[in-house]
Amino acid sequence: MAGSAIKPTPLLKDELDIVIPTIRNLDFLEMWRPFFEQYHLIIVQDGDPSKTIKVPDGFDYELYNRNDINRILGPKASCISFKDSACRCFGYMVSKKKYIYTIDDDCFVAKNPSGEQINALEQHIKNLLSPSTPYFFNTLYDPYREGADFVRGYPFSLREGATTAVSHGLWLNIPDYDAPTQLVKPLERNKRYVDAVLTVPKGTLFPMCGMNLAFNRELIGPAMYFGLMGDGQPIGRYDDMWAGWCMKVICDHMGWGVKTGLPYIWHSKASNPFVNLKKEYRGIYWQEDLIRFFQAAVLPKECVTVQQCYIELAKQVKEKLGKVDPYFIKLADAMVTWIEAWDELNSSEEKSSKQPNGTAK
Amino acid sequence: MAGSAIKPTPLLKDELDIVIPTIRNLDFLEMWRPFFEQYHLIIVQDGDPSKTIKVPDGFDYELYNRNDINRILGPKASCISFKDSACRCFGYMVSKKKYIYTIDDDCFVAKNPSGEQINALEQHIKNLLSPSTPYFFNTLYDPYREGADFVRGYPFSLREGATTAVSHGLWLNIPDYDAPTQLVKPLERNKRYVDAVLTVPKGTLFPMCGMNLAFNRELIGPAMYFGLMGDGQPIGRYDDMWAGWCMKVICDHMGWGVKTGLPYIWHSKASNPFVNLKKEYRGIYWQEDLIRFFQAAVLPKECVTVQQCYIELAKQVKEKLGKVDPYFIKLADAMVTWIEAWDELNSSEEKSSKQPNGTAK
Repeated sequence: MAGSAIKPTPLLKDELDIVIPTIRNLDFLEMWRPFFEQYHLIIVQDGDPSKTIKVPDGFDYELYNRNDINRILGPKASCISFKDSACRCFGYMVSKKKYIYTIDDDCFVAKNPSGEQINALEQHIKNLLSPSTPYFFNTLYDPYREGADFVRGYPFSLREGATTAVSHGLWLNIPDYDAPTQLVKPLERNKRYVDAVLTVPKGTLFPMCGMNLAFNRELIGPAMYFGLMGDGQPIGRYDDMWAGWCMKVICDHMGWGVKTGLPYIWHSKASNPFVNLKKEYRGIYWQEDLIRFFQAAVLPKECVTVQQCYIELAKQVKEKLGKVDPYFIKLADAMVTWIEAWDELNSSEEKSSKQPNGTAK
Repeated sequence: MAGSAIKPTPLLKDELDIVIPTIRNLDFLEMWRPFFEQYHLIIVQDGDPSKTIKVPDGFDYELYNRNDINRILGPKASCISFKDSACRCFGYMVSKKKYIYTIDDDCFVAKNPSGEQINALEQHIKNLLSPSTPYFFNTLYDPYREGADFVRGYPFSLREGATTAVSHGLWLNIPDYDAPTQLVKPLERNKRYVDAVLTVPKGTLFPMCGMNLAFNRELIGPAMYFGLMGDGQPIGRYDDMWAGWCMKVICDHMGWGVKTGLPYIWHSKASNPFVNLKKEYRGIYWQEDLIRFFQAAVLPKECVTVQQCYIELAKQVKEKLGKVDPYFIKLADAMVTWIEAWDELNSSEEKSSKQPNGTAK
């Protein structure tokens, strides 16, 4: 089905998986064909497993539905959310690649101010492969970008930067607002193309959105757990936020950088604000305590792997957030289960090669 | 000489002074006429006081040369640098206005990507009059800007923001590089217009450039001391950096915000990198210790005014940086002298009205 012309090999072709959570046919991939078709896709089908998800011809993919998740993880499947895009983190776990790019199925190719289509994945890869600057702010933004550098007054000892673990991309058109803001500003669209990539400084938290996100799975994968959301849970729409706060505390501890800014995707449709409000309202309330918790969280020096950091964080969640609501005790347990499942699937080369491949086609 | 047409009153017309340090005729003001002519200028003449600085007709200004500074401050004039643009901070001290905008005389009006002239001062005023977000990073940048807001996951308790103390603007064309970078990249020009204003997070330091800078003098003025540079001093070109680091530590302590980004000015000429290297080389070396010092600096709760914070910081500079070089002992003393001089000129309405006005015309 591929054209006969020889296509150039894209960056990290064999080292990156694209993870897409979905409940519908993936027609949106047509628009991404020039940018995605040489990469491998991991599709995590949410909701009714008996439904067939159509994937446009020519894409190389494996697809997991709930039955696959249950079969592969057994009782540990309880840590993977159902009826919520949080299920996407299952894709991170079963990937064997060094890098992950995850995108929502209502996200399309955006254009830059010159009218050119933006290769979002390529920009994410550039972000991940160049260092970050978490220890000092560079006023001309990313100093590693062509035409930019460190400005006067930037300490030379910090110019090598830190290894980048995460690249958080943004959205034109429908901004990623919470339900109250959606309700108050139903017509607001993001039209501002900000031509910058910057490092979120050490010690600073930010709201990480899972819509357009890339990360170094080998480094930070085990911290990218999207929590317990959706079916049977008291909240939704905090999956990526939760992962972002946990991940940021751990990256700060490990000395890795987190970038935000370019690339943009075109976010096509606003979700229903009334439905969102129902999913979010407890989160909006709990969040006030969560932020204080994560701002104050300190990991002991003894935690030298992401898994150790994450287990320690789970312990602190149980101790300190358990008082906010019993939900966080359940979540803390799920965090531990997630790490156990991650290690089971990823503990060694040998083991990993024996893992089932879902319904890979 | 003004045109007969009635001009609209610009923002903060009677509450803001424009401070310009210079050694030459101020022809550059012609380009700024539409934006500056209704404001009051404070010109700080550096170098030979017998030289006459020409100011284009129609501007309302007062001018101070070294003789004026010596006359007004007496022995305390020792804290004001000579033969270095650090002398500009004398203008902050003698101003009686709430806000200051300071600009270098080699900075011209820049254009935005649509080709329109940028009213830099107006943008700075907008930045200063709207809150900052130092406690949590908003991925869509300034949430108070038209067409933007706080994104999902931003705690509601933090959406009122913090009072803004400083607005740091950027530069198109010649970037503000140190001498080594100038030498390595003599032809690099900043052509990237990044359409964003953002808050430098609490706990994060940045290199503050004095070329295009505005601040709330009533709030943070006493911390805007540009140090001992130039004539008789071992370093130059660290005046604004020093002020920026001191100011940031104090703003963090006081709970005020510092913004960077828009507006851009057009920086017309690169200074001589060989001369700069001579001025900078000790700073480049000392800076490594300075950054560690400022990153670790903690001000006690008892410091509730900027003056108290600054005196405390001077004490810590003497104790901790005095070991790096005796220069910092002298600088710490000058910091104390600066505060004494500031308080003398600004302690009360009555006193301040008695201050001489230099060679105001």
